[in-house]
Amino acid sequence: MCNEPRAESREPVAESREPRAESRIMTDHITHYLATTHARHLAQLREFLSIPSISALSSHAPDVRRCAEWVVGAMRGAGLERARLIETAGNPVAYGEWMRAPGAPTVLVYGHYDVQPVDPLERWTSPPFAPTVRDGKLFARGATDDKGQLFAHLAAIEAHLRVTGRLPVNLRMVVEGEEEIGCAHVQALVRERAELLAASVVVISDTAMFARGVPSICRALRGIAYLEVEVRGAATDLHSGSFGGTVANPALALAWMLGSMKDASGRVTVPGFYDAARALGAEERAELARLPFDEARYREALGAPALVGEAGFTTLERAWTRPTLDVNGFHSGFAGEGVKTVIPSTAVAKVSMRLVPDQDPTAIGDLVERHLLEIAPPGVEVRVTGRHGGRAYEASTGHPFMRAAARAMERAFGVRPAFTREGGSNPIVSTFAEVLGAPVILFGLGLPDDNAHAPDEKIDLDQLRRGVVAVAELYGEIGGG
Amino acid sequence: MCNEPRAESREPVAESREPRAESRIMTDHITHYLATTHARHLAQLREFLSIPSISALSSHAPDVRRCAEWVVGAMRGAGLERARLIETAGNPVAYGEWMRAPGAPTVLVYGHYDVQPVDPLERWTSPPFAPTVRDGKLFARGATDDKGQLFAHLAAIEAHLRVTGRLPVNLRMVVEGEEEIGCAHVQALVRERAELLAASVVVISDTAMFARGVPSICRALRGIAYLEVEVRGAATDLHSGSFGGTVANPALALAWMLGSMKDASGRVTVPGFYDAARALGAEERAELARLPFDEARYREALGAPALVGEAGFTTLERAWTRPTLDVNGFHSGFAGEGVKTVIPSTAVAKVSMRLVPDQDPTAIGDLVERHLLEIAPPGVEVRVTGRHGGRAYEASTGHPFMRAAARAMERAFGVRPAFTREGGSNPIVSTFAEVLGAPVILFGLGLPDDNAHAPDEKIDLDQLRRGVVAVAELYGEIGGG
Repeated sequence: MCNEPRAESREPVAESREPRAESRIMTDHITHYLATTHARHLAQLREFLSIPSISALSSHAPDVRRCAEWVVGAMRGAGLERARLIETAGNPVAYGEWMRAPGAPTVLVYGHYDVQPVDPLERWTSPPFAPTVRDGKLFARGATDDKGQLFAHLAAIEAHLRVTGRLPVNLRMVVEGEEEIGCAHVQALVRERAELLAASVVVISDTAMFARGVPSICRALRGIAYLEVEVRGAATDLHSGSFGGTVANPALALAWMLGSMKDASGRVTVPGFYDAARALGAEERAELARLPFDEARYREALGAPALVGEAGFTTLERAWTRPTLDVNGFHSGFAGEGVKTVIPSTAVAKVSMRLVPDQDPTAIGDLVERHLLEIAPPGVEVRVTGRHGGRAYEASTGHPFMRAAARAMERAFGVRPAFTREGGSNPIVSTFAEVLGAPVILFGLGLPDDNAHAPDEKIDLDQLRRGVVAVAELYGEIGGG
Repeated sequence: MCNEPRAESREPVAESREPRAESRIMTDHITHYLATTHARHLAQLREFLSIPSISALSSHAPDVRRCAEWVVGAMRGAGLERARLIETAGNPVAYGEWMRAPGAPTVLVYGHYDVQPVDPLERWTSPPFAPTVRDGKLFARGATDDKGQLFAHLAAIEAHLRVTGRLPVNLRMVVEGEEEIGCAHVQALVRERAELLAASVVVISDTAMFARGVPSICRALRGIAYLEVEVRGAATDLHSGSFGGTVANPALALAWMLGSMKDASGRVTVPGFYDAARALGAEERAELARLPFDEARYREALGAPALVGEAGFTTLERAWTRPTLDVNGFHSGFAGEGVKTVIPSTAVAKVSMRLVPDQDPTAIGDLVERHLLEIAPPGVEVRVTGRHGGRAYEASTGHPFMRAAARAMERAFGVRPAFTREGGSNPIVSTFAEVLGAPVILFGLGLPDDNAHAPDEKIDLDQLRRGVVAVAELYGEIGGG
């Protein structure tokens, strides 16, 4: 739907006819191969999805490691070489490569085997780690984020190697286990072992297409700044009858602090929050306005009573190009079934800010932390912890590899892809761009209603099937067709 | 410390000398008897405390019933007659009586066998249902609220009956299992079966003395109005990256709503909240000011950074005689260990208001519910549920039975008791006063640092020992000495 990919697919970059034809035949073979392996691949993906590799919960550490080992095995099974775990100060990274295409570009495929926690568990139709197919969709935690999308690459690699005995590119695959908790250790690895990870281009399939039937390549991600705030009052929970009225209530204090950070229209009220945010140009706004976006359907799909956001911006602009602030969760006192009338001793909230280009995560974290400490009401102590963050990312749509990606997507899905953006954050993306000096292609194969991070996460099996073909095509297009 | 009990103990109401002397001898026998049974009684109380009769959690329903049956057995063991369960629409009531003192007053002893939930469990030094003695104190959920205090009555009844073969009064004992969740069914029972519960005076031991060494009788309780508020946004938790900025955040909306209900000084800002509240007279304020209250020690005992409350009132006035509002707990989204960046689908809070005489719980609940619905920000739906409440209670300190209670307390503790108040709520108190037309003596045997409703709840064993004697004396004083 964007100008660039349209122009692209009308005028492909110059290339010889023969390899193109050869490539066509190769693609048919690969597609055929994938059709015959579908059942086995589905079983394999279900096995992958049944490992509860929740990186946020230390009780799942053994599952996380088991999952990393599973990925190494799957790499070997697909035909990658030197497949192994690379230890980090945190969860291990699964690494595999195929470097037998001298002269061809090197693709670094990045993904993650860790998943989000599953609460609220009672909102899942089938258990999150018992992968279940319903209505052509595979439901499980990690189905789209990111095990299912990562699996598309493993299947495409296997298909290329089994059908042709080679890959059209050199390829390194890096699959980490801390994406859902900030990517700290893999970022360190990228910085420390740049020689091991040297690549011409990075490909990440960890995002959603614009819509079913509207394939897209994501050209920008928001950044993130994250923190947790803890408010403490008395040393223990107190009987609210005996002591109510004499001490500050940490739950109320935290509520008041959080409530003061954003106005009802959705504008963040922390002083200085918007100062560095890069404003969108008129052309970029026009690009977004051309996308086939149905606001009513979007609202309906979310099941939200109304769409609410910063005045002066469209919904897509709010989601993709404007910084914002959310409370991701809070807890205080007794919130279970029944009644327990206490003044809680503590209250905690998790707060994340989504950032746009030119906003520095550390500076924004500083701003918000300072604000919280300054507005703390009397009678409580406030502590900010858990800060981490990552910058926003924006790619040029004119790069040859971005154009190659657009062609691959069109061949798999039969439609020219749009260049879109994503509101989500992935600090690893800007680290790759910065350290490797390589473009990062966000080659998302999910759908917007896949429930990433939410109950009933799923991947559409038809979408996944086409996604595998798209990835196989992408390797071919990057390798020169 | 108050005028009335002091005057009282200098000028006892007219009574014959002989019964007084007889009573003295009887008391000595009872005290001796209790010394010999101490170990057995402690073992029996530990058994009582080891039953996790948490009425707020439906998963504990079998424990609640088991506990009711335990009480019936203990009543029989103490010598009460017709001991049995009375079924209600909720948890059963344990009932026992001894009605063989024709012409003597009838005492209705009320208590409860249900206990508060135990969260946060990790803050308990020993498990809440593994009663443990440390440093002369018995630690367990329910140790003071109310199993330990109730047990003092069972022990005193047993002692009277074993030593003298009779009680100085007729006595009915009513022990319910829903005190911690609002007393709804026992209140209905009191209203429907007033003939069964007819009594000259009600005695409840479910409060704390003013301080160790400062025995006291509580003359007033605050009322309560309780509600839960649920804020709903989108149908599921949403990825805060993908959707942040486009929909309302229920956690933020709830925070904002809660934060707007009380100012930083502790004054409730809900319109009309204070309109009906009865102000304390100058004499009553003076009565409170005479109590030996050490504000610094109070703050220190609570471990609170500072005492914070409504301007223009002392800490004791704030705790006992002023209405207030507290958030008892809230929860939204992901608040566990680690990071999960969602926009929560829902947020819930539990809110209670403490009331003073002339405030109507239903009217206050209406006010607060209307306020919450009115201030709900756009993009969320707000629902108020779980409303219940009870009126405040205030007793006359001049009643003969109140004077009798003061004498009993002085004989057990060697000090004239003060008449105090309590910030806590007990809707059953006003129901008894209204339906039975009888005075209610709040004959509290706990200490202020007993951690009722909190981790490490305990009862001081020396306090309990004196408490049993005080109860035995109370029966004697009410029966005419």
